[in-house]
Amino acid sequence: MMLRALFLLLISGTSLLAQSSDEFTIRKIYDKALAEGQSYAMLDYLCNKIGARLSGSPGAAAAVEWSRHVMEDYGFDSVWLQPVMVPHWVRGQKEVGRIVNSKKMGTVELSVCALGGSVGTGPEGITASIVEVKSFEELASLGTKQVQGKFVFFNRPMDPTQLQTFTAYGGAVNQRGSGASEAAKYGAVGVIVRSMGINPESYPHTGGMRYATGVPMIPAMAVSTKHADLLSRLLKDDKGLSFYMEMHCQLLEDAPSFNVVGEIRGSEYKDEIIAIGGHLDSWDLGQGAHDDGAGCVQSIEVLRIFKAMGYKPKRTIRAVMFMNEENGLRGGQKYAELAKQNKENHIAAIESDRGGFTPRGFTISAPDGQPEKRARIQSWKPLLEPYGLSDFSQPGGGADIGPLAPQGVTLIGYLPDSQRYFNFHHTPEDNFDKVDKRELELGAASMAALVYLIDQHGLK
Amino acid sequence: MMLRALFLLLISGTSLLAQSSDEFTIRKIYDKALAEGQSYAMLDYLCNKIGARLSGSPGAAAAVEWSRHVMEDYGFDSVWLQPVMVPHWVRGQKEVGRIVNSKKMGTVELSVCALGGSVGTGPEGITASIVEVKSFEELASLGTKQVQGKFVFFNRPMDPTQLQTFTAYGGAVNQRGSGASEAAKYGAVGVIVRSMGINPESYPHTGGMRYATGVPMIPAMAVSTKHADLLSRLLKDDKGLSFYMEMHCQLLEDAPSFNVVGEIRGSEYKDEIIAIGGHLDSWDLGQGAHDDGAGCVQSIEVLRIFKAMGYKPKRTIRAVMFMNEENGLRGGQKYAELAKQNKENHIAAIESDRGGFTPRGFTISAPDGQPEKRARIQSWKPLLEPYGLSDFSQPGGGADIGPLAPQGVTLIGYLPDSQRYFNFHHTPEDNFDKVDKRELELGAASMAALVYLIDQHGLK
Repeated sequence: MMLRALFLLLISGTSLLAQSSDEFTIRKIYDKALAEGQSYAMLDYLCNKIGARLSGSPGAAAAVEWSRHVMEDYGFDSVWLQPVMVPHWVRGQKEVGRIVNSKKMGTVELSVCALGGSVGTGPEGITASIVEVKSFEELASLGTKQVQGKFVFFNRPMDPTQLQTFTAYGGAVNQRGSGASEAAKYGAVGVIVRSMGINPESYPHTGGMRYATGVPMIPAMAVSTKHADLLSRLLKDDKGLSFYMEMHCQLLEDAPSFNVVGEIRGSEYKDEIIAIGGHLDSWDLGQGAHDDGAGCVQSIEVLRIFKAMGYKPKRTIRAVMFMNEENGLRGGQKYAELAKQNKENHIAAIESDRGGFTPRGFTISAPDGQPEKRARIQSWKPLLEPYGLSDFSQPGGGADIGPLAPQGVTLIGYLPDSQRYFNFHHTPEDNFDKVDKRELELGAASMAALVYLIDQHGLK
Repeated sequence: MMLRALFLLLISGTSLLAQSSDEFTIRKIYDKALAEGQSYAMLDYLCNKIGARLSGSPGAAAAVEWSRHVMEDYGFDSVWLQPVMVPHWVRGQKEVGRIVNSKKMGTVELSVCALGGSVGTGPEGITASIVEVKSFEELASLGTKQVQGKFVFFNRPMDPTQLQTFTAYGGAVNQRGSGASEAAKYGAVGVIVRSMGINPESYPHTGGMRYATGVPMIPAMAVSTKHADLLSRLLKDDKGLSFYMEMHCQLLEDAPSFNVVGEIRGSEYKDEIIAIGGHLDSWDLGQGAHDDGAGCVQSIEVLRIFKAMGYKPKRTIRAVMFMNEENGLRGGQKYAELAKQNKENHIAAIESDRGGFTPRGFTISAPDGQPEKRARIQSWKPLLEPYGLSDFSQPGGGADIGPLAPQGVTLIGYLPDSQRYFNFHHTPEDNFDKVDKRELELGAASMAALVYLIDQHGLK
């Protein structure tokens, strides 16, 4: 009994020591991020000097070169490009969405934009009447008879009572993604989609849409939430309302682009890789500050902090700037394809693509049949909770790292507070001035702290 | 044994039922706040139609009338004013803070403002050289010999590595509050205080300062954090730097003002009062949106939500708009004085004065020797955590409710995320456009949920 007690004491002593050393290192990580952080300056450059960077655009090309240089200048062990062909969609000149004959208001210009991937209307535009629906079910119930030759106006709002705004987004976004093809089935000439914003706003949200095969490709436009409400009010008394849509967007040939990868090689287990990343491409309307400049600079900052602290990771740590998350996911697919081809062993991949907001926790998707990996990460909660990270309950990784799942990689998403995200997402407002310095830095430090713990203790 | 088991089953059944009814009501509170909330529209009016409302100003008088009308219009059972005399300090024309002879830059206008309560310089201003210090200890070590006839420049920054920005504020704010009198002890002619901002900013932060008795009252000015850094850099190579200060502020006679109180009377225990409040006064530079328009409209919103839900509280619920938190606390003192005089029994008082940001938790200060009241509130964490309220660990109430402490009242502070607060606090930037609608609404709902639980279950 005495021996056993002594043994337990030793064990718990060792564990306390490890705990206290982890506490110390994590505190140091946050100090580096908050007192000498460089994520905010990086984001300033990416947003204000480069700006919008839709796949295939000059901005995207500039961002590739910029991030390569930044990681080289920080002296990471290797920095390289992964070539990948990406869709190349262009918006063309400013869209027009106009009510032409309101009984109450006459001609009304609406705040609109083309949805990403949409076909244009041709230069002569399209004029037709409007039928409003809240769901695909309601659309189906109207049928060809009431839809043929008209615009379908999808006007189901994001549910404001959802605590997590991403849940509200999930409940509305099929209108944007599949609305055009659903409406085309019944002979619609185009769709007008209520923007994916949770508040009353005067600007539209763009975002990806896809055409189903076997139905005509009709143009798809987003309208600001305020103007969606206006349009709906006007339609109530004025069924003969006529709408003019003009969009000059088009899909060009695929264009060459790149993922950008920076790496610090592990000192003990260099073949075990921990990847952290965000996506370098953005939509074309704003600067892509929260979506996802924040995730990119935070990922670079993790490696920079390790170097600045003199921390030598046991495992190989990679910062990955994924290309083309917004309209194709080609970069994420390419990264996973190359990882498989090169027989790389990723033990974890972490994505930051929910904005540069104050930390709440991490989402975790462990590989099938390995719930202990999720439990392992959750066991670190006491070390991370003092930094505002208390939610480790939700599953999820991220779009770009998703393709790594079949390789048995534990996928993790950085989870910041979600309340303000959909004020900016895919809009002309997603600019540097909407990002708070400390919130951004805390995100970078939170990611670095988790990478440190995985690096030290593994996920076995 | 069988009977006992049955008894336990019944007990736990009842408790489960209560739990589930609480869950249901709390969900309803959040639905009301998020889908049909009026806090944001109230704040819009208070900020954009009334604006700044320093004690004794026309804005403060307008805010008193406005809040009285709002609560009457919502049909609360009683709404009344509590007269209170308040300090009446006025800023006068725009201050000047100017480096007059920089070797490198010549004349440099700095971004400055008078600290609240400061005397002016007289219209002729004051010109003198500058000595920079980081602390009162450093000031004392310099002594009269090196301070006499000069400006003292207090330049200790808020510590950016503090996770809670209020802790960083606490570590720096004595420079603002007592710096002038400390410097006057050694013959200084005035003080220049680094603004209480945690980030590099181009605008100054005002805030309260007090003169100690027995030392001369010298003028006290705040300088923006960016200009504090500039001034410090210039002083390094240029000890003969000369500074011109001109401030026209003055303290007038005390002015009449009011606390504004609205009440819904309890159906079962009407003599047990739960008070919730914020302070109606603000500094004069911005609109007082986060500080503390947010707390005021959230407090009114709690009672409005209860009425909108048809919830009849068992206990009496009061929304209190305290006057003069910023430069005197006369409203808070008057409220406590009247409560004592009228033998009122406050079982809890909740203050929201940390901005309209996303919820984190509540601070709790239970009366001496009654830790069970704190534990009671903490026991509700499972009901509140789904709404982002997970931190119930810190002590604290709020400045305005503090004077109730001697009456054995449990004091509670609404605790939102603190990262952005000191970007706005006491600055020209504390405006309506810096408040997020959902974050504000979640705060109101969080307060309503806690008031509901206290009302239903008491704190015994």
